[in-house]
Amino acid sequence: MQEMDTNQNIPLAMKFNLEKDKLADAVNRVMKAVSSRTTIPILTGIKVTAGLDGITLTGSNSDISIKSFIPLEENGNENARIEAAGNIVLPSRLFSELVRKLPDNRVDIEVDSRLIARITSGSTEFTINGLDPEEYPNLPVIDEKDLVSIRKDLLKDLIKQTVYAVSVSETRPVLTGVKWTIQNGRLDCVATDSHRLSQRSVPVESGSDADLQTVVIPGSSLNELSKILDDDNEELIDMIFSQNQVLFRTRYVQFFSRLLDGNYPDTSRLIPTDSKTTITLPTKALYHAIERASLLAKEERNNVVKLRTEGSKVEISSQSPELGRVFETLMADELEGEELRISFSAKFMMDALSKIDAQNVRVYFTGPMRPFIIRPIGDDGILMLILPIRTF
Amino acid sequence: MQEMDTNQNIPLAMKFNLEKDKLADAVNRVMKAVSSRTTIPILTGIKVTAGLDGITLTGSNSDISIKSFIPLEENGNENARIEAAGNIVLPSRLFSELVRKLPDNRVDIEVDSRLIARITSGSTEFTINGLDPEEYPNLPVIDEKDLVSIRKDLLKDLIKQTVYAVSVSETRPVLTGVKWTIQNGRLDCVATDSHRLSQRSVPVESGSDADLQTVVIPGSSLNELSKILDDDNEELIDMIFSQNQVLFRTRYVQFFSRLLDGNYPDTSRLIPTDSKTTITLPTKALYHAIERASLLAKEERNNVVKLRTEGSKVEISSQSPELGRVFETLMADELEGEELRISFSAKFMMDALSKIDAQNVRVYFTGPMRPFIIRPIGDDGILMLILPIRTF
Repeated sequence: MQEMDTNQNIPLAMKFNLEKDKLADAVNRVMKAVSSRTTIPILTGIKVTAGLDGITLTGSNSDISIKSFIPLEENGNENARIEAAGNIVLPSRLFSELVRKLPDNRVDIEVDSRLIARITSGSTEFTINGLDPEEYPNLPVIDEKDLVSIRKDLLKDLIKQTVYAVSVSETRPVLTGVKWTIQNGRLDCVATDSHRLSQRSVPVESGSDADLQTVVIPGSSLNELSKILDDDNEELIDMIFSQNQVLFRTRYVQFFSRLLDGNYPDTSRLIPTDSKTTITLPTKALYHAIERASLLAKEERNNVVKLRTEGSKVEISSQSPELGRVFETLMADELEGEELRISFSAKFMMDALSKIDAQNVRVYFTGPMRPFIIRPIGDDGILMLILPIRTF
Repeated sequence: MQEMDTNQNIPLAMKFNLEKDKLADAVNRVMKAVSSRTTIPILTGIKVTAGLDGITLTGSNSDISIKSFIPLEENGNENARIEAAGNIVLPSRLFSELVRKLPDNRVDIEVDSRLIARITSGSTEFTINGLDPEEYPNLPVIDEKDLVSIRKDLLKDLIKQTVYAVSVSETRPVLTGVKWTIQNGRLDCVATDSHRLSQRSVPVESGSDADLQTVVIPGSSLNELSKILDDDNEELIDMIFSQNQVLFRTRYVQFFSRLLDGNYPDTSRLIPTDSKTTITLPTKALYHAIERASLLAKEERNNVVKLRTEGSKVEISSQSPELGRVFETLMADELEGEELRISFSAKFMMDALSKIDAQNVRVYFTGPMRPFIIRPIGDDGILMLILPIRTF
């Protein structure tokens, strides 16, 4: 049939066929890096490269770039067959939608020298105007010397437990990132928006006696990275750092992010070392009590709830002059030190508690106007800090 | 404990306790009628009535009102226990959120004569400022003489298959509703926005030799009704019509809607009685071919796809000068009559086909500029009509 096509005299630039589901997965992954609001027209597309060993898809915006590779064969199954190696850039939104909706589980893609792509599957034939792959920017080349590895599930936890605390304001851009410090086989992460802070320290595998390295990775990049990490949790992810880029690499996916410039503030001084009141509570019970108090608190401007200790009881309350008030008593598992009355943002407290998997938390207070610390019981590597709000 | 409360000298206006889940279900149901944008302050609330036989919740806006009843006992289980009958109106958004988040599966509600409601569950206590139930409008009283009954699953299908075709423009308000005609034991429903039409006729059970009745029910009311109908599909729903209201009634739920004024146009003249080309196709294959063509068509202003017959083949295509084109061939199960080229809205075709459960549809064309008809094979009661678009 193809010999009868009107395109028969146009030289072929690329030709391959592959599994629809493999293609759809790869497209979904690289789409996380494609922005419809980019000012660089070529970056509205997905770059498709058919090489000798498989198909590579690339998506990019000014902050992150994602490469997803589909090998010709995997576990003895044929994913793809390449008849002519080559490149094309295809409009990302249309391409990602049409791939998902193709009728057959096999797709043929053929590109001629005019950059016209013919995508066929079953009795459907799309003819799509492509863009010139020569215009597509090259991804950074990163020196592999400082390679550090981490388990995927640990990386996902680490991201979840720190990124929520980054600043959303651009007044101090460096605070929109998470500071990563690698030293002596440990990775220390810190995020703060100057009203709250989260930090976690975990062990990592490092090839060299890795020197001290400090980078600040945009919170938004880490969120996108987390989304494309699949559930093969034991897989190791390689992390490679350069002066202004970081590369996260799994077997078939490469995720590049730019790094943030600027001096990250020294946060260690913020963290109190003593405690005047220490309360141990079940994480979920505390979360749900704050959530209920927040139903009234959020009607007010600042979403503030109050916490008060009395004997071994912890009272959580809030009120709205218009709607009413809510009052709840929790029994602490342990309660040591001075009696306490303190007010804080319900949202900040819920953000922190919702990132903790441990059954119980211990909260360390050093008075109503001093930052307080939340630590899950069972993992000393995690610390969350919140500044209170003056109301009493 | 309650005797020690500071409220002890304030007379009690209402007091009961009930199952949290029963309350949450009822609140969810009546919330469908509550609008946060109402100009009548009392209608931002949910009316709660504790009577001798159970608890009734009421929500209302100017178009629809919903009553949900929780009986004291159901299947031998105690749902509720009433200590003092009475009424209160509670702020709907706060009440619906807090009910879902209460810690215990039992809730106590106590209202004093100052209209302050105390809602307790486990160790949580909400104190909410209520509104005066005397200000809450009375729901219409509807004469039961013209009662018609229909199975719930049939009513849901009927709504789904007609409401999609109502007009969304207020230029002819009567077209935003569905015309219902009850006569001789049948209910005929018609909806049209003047570019497309849908009609379905079903048998109903009627107590009397019901006289001819014609009403126009707002499409939005029917959509909300459909959402609150649970999956007990064999239950019969009573429908009672008055001059300007309709009541849909199940055992524990009453749904009132206003009716639309104005003369509904005679749509029977629109429907062609002859056919020059008749095509029989699998419903889903046709739907998905249109959906794929629409990926390119929707980039253009009017989302138009083309259909062309050739022998027993049906070609679906569309194009966008900027992006490219798509072309697909379907094998018709049957194809009779003249060759045809026609263009139409992909959205209208997908809307119609997605409401059809039958495996196959027959499409009747009487030329490229005449309305065409879609009928599911196996149910003569359903007819959908679409006006084509001139492109050839």
